[in-house]
Amino acid sequence: MPERTLITGNEAAAEGAIAGGCRYFFGYPITPQNKIPEYMSEHLPEIGGVYLQAESEVAAINMLYGASATGAWAMTTSSSPGISLMQEGLSFMIGAELPCVVINMVRGGPGLGNIAPAQSDYWLATRGAGHGDGRCLTFAPFSVQEIYDLTGEAFPIAQKYRNPVMILADAILASMREPCALRERREPPEEKPPWAIGRGRESRERNIINSLWIDPLAMEAVNLRVQQRYEEAAKNETRWTEHGADTPEILVCAYGISARICQTAVERATEAGVPTRLIRPISLFPFPSQVIRDWAERVKKVLVVELSLGQFVEDVRLAIEGACPVEIMGRAGGVMMTPEEVTERIVGLARG
Amino acid sequence: MPERTLITGNEAAAEGAIAGGCRYFFGYPITPQNKIPEYMSEHLPEIGGVYLQAESEVAAINMLYGASATGAWAMTTSSSPGISLMQEGLSFMIGAELPCVVINMVRGGPGLGNIAPAQSDYWLATRGAGHGDGRCLTFAPFSVQEIYDLTGEAFPIAQKYRNPVMILADAILASMREPCALRERREPPEEKPPWAIGRGRESRERNIINSLWIDPLAMEAVNLRVQQRYEEAAKNETRWTEHGADTPEILVCAYGISARICQTAVERATEAGVPTRLIRPISLFPFPSQVIRDWAERVKKVLVVELSLGQFVEDVRLAIEGACPVEIMGRAGGVMMTPEEVTERIVGLARG
Amino acid sequence: MPERTLITGNEAAAEGAIAGGCRYFFGYPITPQNKIPEYMSEHLPEIGGVYLQAESEVAAINMLYGASATGAWAMTTSSSPGISLMQEGLSFMIGAELPCVVINMVRGGPGLGNIAPAQSDYWLATRGAGHGDGRCLTFAPFSVQEIYDLTGEAFPIAQKYRNPVMILADAILASMREPCALRERREPPEEKPPWAIGRGRESRERNIINSLWIDPLAMEAVNLRVQQRYEEAAKNETRWTEHGADTPEILVCAYGISARICQTAVERATEAGVPTRLIRPISLFPFPSQVIRDWAERVKKVLVVELSLGQFVEDVRLAIEGACPVEIMGRAGGVMMTPEEVTERIVGLARG
Amino acid sequence: MPERTLITGNEAAAEGAIAGGCRYFFGYPITPQNKIPEYMSEHLPEIGGVYLQAESEVAAINMLYGASATGAWAMTTSSSPGISLMQEGLSFMIGAELPCVVINMVRGGPGLGNIAPAQSDYWLATRGAGHGDGRCLTFAPFSVQEIYDLTGEAFPIAQKYRNPVMILADAILASMREPCALRERREPPEEKPPWAIGRGRESRERNIINSLWIDPLAMEAVNLRVQQRYEEAAKNETRWTEHGADTPEILVCAYGISARICQTAVERATEAGVPTRLIRPISLFPFPSQVIRDWAERVKKVLVVELSLGQFVEDVRLAIEGACPVEIMGRAGGVMMTPEEVTERIVGLARG
Repeated sequence: MPERTLITGNEAAAEGAIAGGCRYFFGYPITPQNKIPEYMSEHLPEIGGVYLQAESEVAAINMLYGASATGAWAMTTSSSPGISLMQEGLSFMIGAELPCVVINMVRGGPGLGNIAPAQSDYWLATRGAGHGDGRCLTFAPFSVQEIYDLTGEAFPIAQKYRNPVMILADAILASMREPCALRERREPPEEKPPWAIGRGRESRERNIINSLWIDPLAMEAVNLRVQQRYEEAAKNETRWTEHGADTPEILVCAYGISARICQTAVERATEAGVPTRLIRPISLFPFPSQVIRDWAERVKKVLVVELSLGQFVEDVRLAIEGACPVEIMGRAGGVMMTPEEVTERIVGLARG
Repeated sequence: MPERTLITGNEAAAEGAIAGGCRYFFGYPITPQNKIPEYMSEHLPEIGGVYLQAESEVAAINMLYGASATGAWAMTTSSSPGISLMQEGLSFMIGAELPCVVINMVRGGPGLGNIAPAQSDYWLATRGAGHGDGRCLTFAPFSVQEIYDLTGEAFPIAQKYRNPVMILADAILASMREPCALRERREPPEEKPPWAIGRGRESRERNIINSLWIDPLAMEAVNLRVQQRYEEAAKNETRWTEHGADTPEILVCAYGISARICQTAVERATEAGVPTRLIRPISLFPFPSQVIRDWAERVKKVLVVELSLGQFVEDVRLAIEGACPVEIMGRAGGVMMTPEEVTERIVGLARG
Repeated sequence: MPERTLITGNEAAAEGAIAGGCRYFFGYPITPQNKIPEYMSEHLPEIGGVYLQAESEVAAINMLYGASATGAWAMTTSSSPGISLMQEGLSFMIGAELPCVVINMVRGGPGLGNIAPAQSDYWLATRGAGHGDGRCLTFAPFSVQEIYDLTGEAFPIAQKYRNPVMILADAILASMREPCALRERREPPEEKPPWAIGRGRESRERNIINSLWIDPLAMEAVNLRVQQRYEEAAKNETRWTEHGADTPEILVCAYGISARICQTAVERATEAGVPTRLIRPISLFPFPSQVIRDWAERVKKVLVVELSLGQFVEDVRLAIEGACPVEIMGRAGGVMMTPEEVTERIVGLARG
Repeated sequence: MPERTLITGNEAAAEGAIAGGCRYFFGYPITPQNKIPEYMSEHLPEIGGVYLQAESEVAAINMLYGASATGAWAMTTSSSPGISLMQEGLSFMIGAELPCVVINMVRGGPGLGNIAPAQSDYWLATRGAGHGDGRCLTFAPFSVQEIYDLTGEAFPIAQKYRNPVMILADAILASMREPCALRERREPPEEKPPWAIGRGRESRERNIINSLWIDPLAMEAVNLRVQQRYEEAAKNETRWTEHGADTPEILVCAYGISARICQTAVERATEAGVPTRLIRPISLFPFPSQVIRDWAERVKKVLVVELSLGQFVEDVRLAIEGACPVEIMGRAGGVMMTPEEVTERIVGLARG
């Protein structure tokens, strides 16, 4: 068993990326994720990688576009407003069928907002990636270890599906310090993918990376390829965890930092006589609809807990399709609910 | 009855805006909506308005932010990639509780895509507005007259709810020429709203326009105010039309340009012995969920027709919640379905 | 005689511009000239003019380029680093034979420097205007009244010679408050110059504004036209004042704020038994070479006083061509010499 | 004796830079110097150097500022309009006492101009470096070999005087192909200069790189240091060549590409009975004033030949100070004089 080191979520994201094969980083500073670029600026050059601070988030995502086109394993990280600025670039990368990894350490919004934890970029992550029919494959870690693991895995996943992968965490996970088992750093594959364009004067067949398809049928073909990859991803990459009572009365759905609060709440509610089960989606797109649906048919009610005002709940309701009542407990702007409040709500639901 | 003029959708958008009180326009050119800025650049100065071509879409939306803060009635227009670039700015305006009007003449995507018609920015419009819990109030016209009318109405609606309003159309509606009844141009109200900041040395009480709220509870209060306005809007601004058989077997849901195709298809299917009804949402957010739900309970199946690959259908499914089966007929990248194809699908569904 | 008002140099520059016919202002803030844009932002809109804050000095000069091409009477103002950023744009305007007015309230340099008075942009003004053989017609006021007058006159001069005109002052003149006689505001001529391009849909013959001439002979023809205008300007616009002893032993040359110090010094030196004369060039390009040469042949020595380290002195030496010894007294970085120091130096020279 | 390779001026500049120790290149493309960045993009990474294409010339010079502050040996290259855009950055580097190397392959101007050879950036090079009292040390090669040699030498010279060094050539020299003896590539010194700031977490004493000095006396001290270095450079770095008759009647002064034409003309005029001597300054700042003055006192007339309309001639006249008549033969906009025309002019001068 590997040794475990005490590090923050930001450090886990940075080191996880390097361990996973990331060798190019482009970004622009924003709290609460500045430790990631700082870490990358120190450690990437040590291993022959490239760290480049862009002049804006718009620039950063377009640098990612260029680097990824050459087959480089590249990442950018930001927080909510910075991710909004990357929407056009993400759409370009999806249209060009290019992989990349983007981390969003969500802060309270909208606008400048604040630097408190939030989950209000759920749609931006799962329905976002700008205009057109593309989406980001989205994973939501809930611990420092999971940030490390998922960020590392994100690179080969992005390559496999030739699509941006977003890691969606928040301001608390970014700065939280926990023990984390580190793997050996993996080098990205020597051989470039067949679609990559050459760098400099490398002699290879000419590839073209492009998101412009004047002919609608050609453009539709790209879209259908993209959607097919999403279906494949739904088969291979759907992830979740379950926790709590085996014959629950109440099903709680929560992801990321909210799910940590709900773990406690679910235990307490069960102890208090309301058997409760927690489903925590790890992949938000693809979404673990089936398991939620299955459990929803066996419980009295579903409670969705999110640090936003009705975003995540839509995916739950789409999964359940009225099979049982769904209620939402949401906070906004950086406010968090306590385990007590969630417990109370669960118990109330059971009795209501 | 006012005379009717033969104009394009772009001209209707521009003249509709002026008639509705728009006096400030900021934008950056992109096909298929360039006739709007061209029209504004010619006609706004004639009536003392301001037309300013920005150096980018990021700049345009931030100019809108500034103008709107002073109480000006302002608009920008673009097409898909340009709207992606405005996501941060829209979030800032929502956080600052500022009105504005944005027109998106959607083109094929993702990425550069093409300049053919598409509806693949449905999420960008209804779930978009960048990070945080804000959304754009969204209206989807399906004729030149409706572009004219809705764009004009969008200005007082934006002011009333202190929120961006998006008019979502597409490349065909933008260039289609139809007769349109023009109203007299309305001046924006002389009196500035109480929240507006002064321009220059105007003497008035000091207001602060801001989207930064370090205290999460203060930030949450803004969010709750914003959500409350959305609920109000759901009561007052939900719009749709219905068309076709009164005792339908099949319910078709479509909006915008797709709904024009479906009108014909619904008639033909009914004639072919499959009574069919079309519900066309005009407001996409707020969404006419109740009426869709009501009809869904009375039909055999629901067919959702959209020029995208599964976006609009989610709102329909959220409305119906499993009350009856929902199928989707979608095309991507600028490809359109024909009335014949839709008719055939309806008939197939009825028999299937 | 008009009434005199107590205003600062910055206000005199702004009001002088408006009185001279300026109706378009583009600029970016920098100390010590921020009162000019502030004044323009308040007063230009009152008279139907346009004030626009650019996103940078590079943007500002290019907005001037565009506005001037339509025949608009336009100005920008800045201080040293901002003027450096405008060098490319100025060269473009000269190549396109376009008029404009630029005010440089010089601050201590190089680099960020400080906000103290300096004259170290002499070359930037007289040899500057970027690459190619073009130059700015340059005028150097030495009082608030002269700032007002010269800025006003700069507009028709710029139009006459189709060339940028620079007003070169400094941080002290910018903030100094003096009585100033204001004229009535003059409207710019209604009729556009024959070379101007139309604005919007104005019907007029098509003009092309351009600084690209692939054929070297065509490009040389532009240059010869430009030089011919400089020769004309040398005949019509060369300006200076003289002060002091009629049969001087020492000739002092100084311009702008330095000349104010030298006026006192010249009087004191004369009183102290060293008859001294001051020539103060008002136009720096064209330069009053002949009068300086004439006096130089009649004196023992020439003293050049400048708030820079050997810039202005070159024009004096080019005028004198060795006819008598020339010495320089220069300070740098915002430091000023006192009248006493100059007097002492004059007396020393006479005795030396 | 090293072997000689047939290369263009652009390649000589690039390889000369690498041989001289350049390891960082930042630039933005512009004809006629694009082969330099292309060469650097290919060869710098091979030896562990950094090639970065900036988003504009303003960005490029500021990247140079940052790199140089860390002690890196860095270069940018451009052509006339691009150099104009760098004026602010050059002034910042001079104010911060930072070395760098800038190559200007001058093209016809002003404005966009054309891509023909010109020398009309003489002032921009020798009086330029933006606002404040700073200047670029300037060298003007006249052959491919000299481009190679001077570019290589420019790096240690820039370091020695902590000042930008400009290599001033033109469109013909840039693309001309000549044999060139290449030296071995020299590594830049391992030890960073004592004033350099650390890169990343390097442990060293804290240095501050800054061009902001609010106290005018402190700012003047910087200026005096800078001027003192220029005086040192005048002693050590003044360079020129002489060619032609030992007891000349006519002295010709020309630099760079013009001097090549004049070499032939000087020989022909001497053969035609008018003994003529050519002085070709290699360093333009510092300028070889003394040698020009010395010869001027022994000839009948001086002819200045330049591809501009009266720039270089001023330095000649400042050197000669009326010791003999000076005439100028200049062309503009990319037009070149022929050896025949210069010969004719020399003979005419002698007889006139």
